[in-house]
Amino acid sequence: MDTILRSADNTVIISTEGPVVIIGEKINPTGRKKMQACLQAGDFDYIIELARSQVAAGAQVLDINVGVPGMDDVALMRRVVQLVSEAVDVPLCLDSPNPLALAAGLEVAPGRPLVNSISGEESRLASVLPLVKERGAAVIGLIMDDSGVPATPEGRLAVAGKIIERAAKMGIPAEDIIIDPLAMAVGADSEAGLVTLKTIELIRREFGNNITMGASNVSFGLPERPTLNAAFMALAIHAGATCAITDPAKLAGTIRAVDLLLGRDEYSMEYIRWFRKSQALNAAQAMQEAVPAI
Amino acid sequence: MDTILRSADNTVIISTEGPVVIIGEKINPTGRKKMQACLQAGDFDYIIELARSQVAAGAQVLDINVGVPGMDDVALMRRVVQLVSEAVDVPLCLDSPNPLALAAGLEVAPGRPLVNSISGEESRLASVLPLVKERGAAVIGLIMDDSGVPATPEGRLAVAGKIIERAAKMGIPAEDIIIDPLAMAVGADSEAGLVTLKTIELIRREFGNNITMGASNVSFGLPERPTLNAAFMALAIHAGATCAITDPAKLAGTIRAVDLLLGRDEYSMEYIRWFRKSQALNAAQAMQEAVPAI
Repeated sequence: MDTILRSADNTVIISTEGPVVIIGEKINPTGRKKMQACLQAGDFDYIIELARSQVAAGAQVLDINVGVPGMDDVALMRRVVQLVSEAVDVPLCLDSPNPLALAAGLEVAPGRPLVNSISGEESRLASVLPLVKERGAAVIGLIMDDSGVPATPEGRLAVAGKIIERAAKMGIPAEDIIIDPLAMAVGADSEAGLVTLKTIELIRREFGNNITMGASNVSFGLPERPTLNAAFMALAIHAGATCAITDPAKLAGTIRAVDLLLGRDEYSMEYIRWFRKSQALNAAQAMQEAVPAI
Repeated sequence: MDTILRSADNTVIISTEGPVVIIGEKINPTGRKKMQACLQAGDFDYIIELARSQVAAGAQVLDINVGVPGMDDVALMRRVVQLVSEAVDVPLCLDSPNPLALAAGLEVAPGRPLVNSISGEESRLASVLPLVKERGAAVIGLIMDDSGVPATPEGRLAVAGKIIERAAKMGIPAEDIIIDPLAMAVGADSEAGLVTLKTIELIRREFGNNITMGASNVSFGLPERPTLNAAFMALAIHAGATCAITDPAKLAGTIRAVDLLLGRDEYSMEYIRWFRKSQALNAAQAMQEAVPAI
């Protein structure tokens, strides 16, 4: 099953056969003070730099979230989508709890963007699905509904089924729904990782949709989070995840390694390409850090 | 299925239900010049230090390989097994191509050791299985025979079946055979990882034995080997590997992370225990490195 995304001149196919598509997560002010300050000051250079550096590190799609308390997220979404799509030629993933901000982003995003997100919540289905349908976009469906996140893989599968069915009724095909099975913190519940992995396997078997995974919730509250995040990303891809919303500077190596280890990277070409990019980025960063000392 | 190993006062159970048991790989002179020199000089302090540091880093069993060209490996095996089992109270894994060295190690090792290894090769089955049986030990079976390493998962499964059957004929039960499905370099063959992962899944389904995995062959010849090794270890455990011959200082964190993510570590206790050990080891190492500077 293929989910097709487009920028102005570029097509990215998220395929259930792999390889995994990396969605850069860093254009998001949540927990990032510098980005919050830039959005508040109307200083967009840093955001454009984040767009370029994520693409250089291996991001194939960029998530755009501009939610800062007290700011006009509709105007901000429009502006940031325009600036980022002028700076880099990758499809965008428009990320907002506000349907009006999503509508504004959909209006100005070139090509075929991804919407982040709907869920099984009625208000979300009612407000966002029509936007997705009208624009002919693809959409991420979070496995939660008005009762919250189901505790069992079977419960989560049922929410995925509801989302896919409701989208189908609107004329949105299954290939345009990417399911996010939600990973909760294993530090709070040591079954949390296993439940998510089993959910991924069930969805792949029952519905066959593409599946996206964020890798950092799972390690919340525990030490050595990069070790846990990398291990979880490997397991999630093995279970069936086909795209990842992540920081490519941190996890692109693991993702390209897993594709290679699963036989999806002939002659290790993508793995070696990632390695060369990361070498070049490290060299550029070292140079930049050395400048003040000269 | 449980493989039970013992040192003088300690029992280690390798269970197909997990958690994963870590076998420390560093007492092996292959490619380690310092250890070669120590064995040649009869200076065993370094080896005892390697035994202690691996256990401190999370090894639950220690592999003992003393093969240095031109040295008497029978006498060396006897001596190193005695010294290591006096220094640390963990079961040993006796590792030699020479059946006489294995016999010497089996004679002096306390408890119930593991033998590394037999294979489907006739000479190996004939020379090593009787030693394993006589001593009541457990044994690792490499998936290769007189024709080499089969290319397909099905071919490797057949070799595993032969090993298990030949052991059974000698009265060695399946739970005392740990299969090593052999990981070849993905840099040479991009299907190599997938073939090994599928072999693990097949063996677990068809025979149910414990499975061991070395994680470093797979990355041979490629850059950023630790990224590949950690990803492969995660995938192999997810597929069904239940013990790992590895450097605990490098991969114990990933292994404990995967157990936690697979729901085998209640309250994250083993993961946090690993983290504290690694903190203590790092602090001790930093102290040691600081000494000459004072």
